[in-house]
Amino acid sequence: MATFRLTLAYDGTDFVGWQWQPGQRTIQDELEAALQRITGQRPKCIASGRTDAGVHALGQVVSFSSDTRHEPEVLARALNAELPDDMLVFEVSRAPDGFHAQRDAVRKRYRYMIEDGRLRDLFGRRYLWHIYQRLNVEAMQAAAAPLVGIHDFTSYETTGSSRLTTVRTVFDLTVERHTNELTDRVIVEVEADGFLYNMVRNIVGTLVAVGKCKESTGWPAQVLEMRDRTKAGMTAPAQGLFLVGVEYRKDGACGLQSAECGIEATDDDFVE
Amino acid sequence: MATFRLTLAYDGTDFVGWQWQPGQRTIQDELEAALQRITGQRPKCIASGRTDAGVHALGQVVSFSSDTRHEPEVLARALNAELPDDMLVFEVSRAPDGFHAQRDAVRKRYRYMIEDGRLRDLFGRRYLWHIYQRLNVEAMQAAAAPLVGIHDFTSYETTGSSRLTTVRTVFDLTVERHTNELTDRVIVEVEADGFLYNMVRNIVGTLVAVGKCKESTGWPAQVLEMRDRTKAGMTAPAQGLFLVGVEYRKDGACGLQSAECGIEATDDDFVE
Repeated sequence: MATFRLTLAYDGTDFVGWQWQPGQRTIQDELEAALQRITGQRPKCIASGRTDAGVHALGQVVSFSSDTRHEPEVLARALNAELPDDMLVFEVSRAPDGFHAQRDAVRKRYRYMIEDGRLRDLFGRRYLWHIYQRLNVEAMQAAAAPLVGIHDFTSYETTGSSRLTTVRTVFDLTVERHTNELTDRVIVEVEADGFLYNMVRNIVGTLVAVGKCKESTGWPAQVLEMRDRTKAGMTAPAQGLFLVGVEYRKDGACGLQSAECGIEATDDDFVE
Repeated sequence: MATFRLTLAYDGTDFVGWQWQPGQRTIQDELEAALQRITGQRPKCIASGRTDAGVHALGQVVSFSSDTRHEPEVLARALNAELPDDMLVFEVSRAPDGFHAQRDAVRKRYRYMIEDGRLRDLFGRRYLWHIYQRLNVEAMQAAAAPLVGIHDFTSYETTGSSRLTTVRTVFDLTVERHTNELTDRVIVEVEADGFLYNMVRNIVGTLVAVGKCKESTGWPAQVLEMRDRTKAGMTAPAQGLFLVGVEYRKDGACGLQSAECGIEATDDDFVE
């Protein structure tokens, strides 16, 4: 059995999420079924994180084991022929034995797309949160800054998930307006060593309350300090969220560190 | 009864086209039903042209008569609250009595979006024709030039439509590559005083054969001269086509000219 690493994008609109569920359309099920048609075996596919219903991916990373004799490039082409048109494989490569797309991830980056203003982009509606009120992006930027760093993000977690710790390191959190002749979008990007359940969507919902001038610029930092799940703003809707990419240990070490710490694949890092 | 003019956009993906058909989802039906819920009356809505299944609009123009007392701006807001999320009204205004969105149109502009290359844009797939082979845009530009002007476009018409004449004036026909860091698109734009059935899609399919170097640069002009419907290239798929906008007589004259010529609303200008 060889271990493979696969990078794929998907439009989450018509899926109930990554994880297999009986009778439901999931990304995991479509991917495993396509691999079965190509290789004759159904491998168990593990994603860097299990994206929720409606959440998209630009660069989800998946690991699986297979004794297929197909070369990785052949597998990639065959997968793109077999997969439905809302999934797209960028690359398949061999990974070191034991590579585990979830446990070995060291950083993930998410993007959240908001469109604010009177007119909505009809053709982007599956990938945007439309807000009729114009947002104050400078206030959102200032409000976001204190969330960067090592913090207990309990306040920004949606309940119902089990995890060893609620401390995460946010390396980067930016709020920027991107304007062109046709569209006007506010894009929030977050990079961290891991995310609690709905963490990005709860951060975005909280920052939007600041952008609407309903809350002060200092409020998101106050919410953080309270460590109380009931204090944050609304959970931003799923359709604006994209998993941009996942970073792994450069040396290619295969989860030894996690295994030594006794960390197993759990509901931790549910990744939105 | 007052006459109204309405400009709207729609994502044609989930419609069988503009025109009402029993038991089918059409733009006309959704619009008339929404107007009925708002005004209590169901007006007959006339579009500048009846777009086919899967064809989109950025600026479709529609006329209807109503004795509603709502101001046009109120109607526009109410429509956007009532309409499904794949339709969007930009403007409603009062029009001179007798204004007829189809008969009074003097120019229409269409855009066709092609994506060429190995990778496809997952999130643009509903609005693009993806072609794996890289297209020669310079050859397509050169091939398109002779189609500008007053010509008999019989060769570029799909059969099955009735119309008084197959002569149309093409004012503008451009083929350009638009590249950014994420996408690589070839955009064909055509402006004419009217279009035969599937004319834009047949022109695009023919130009693509040139872009793939399957046909010579001079071929589209030769096809034009043959006046033979069987000679043109394939009909490009509907999902890449957008009705960009419609121009009307600046003086606001209301179809007098057409009425004098005895031109009635027919299958002419089926507009793709």
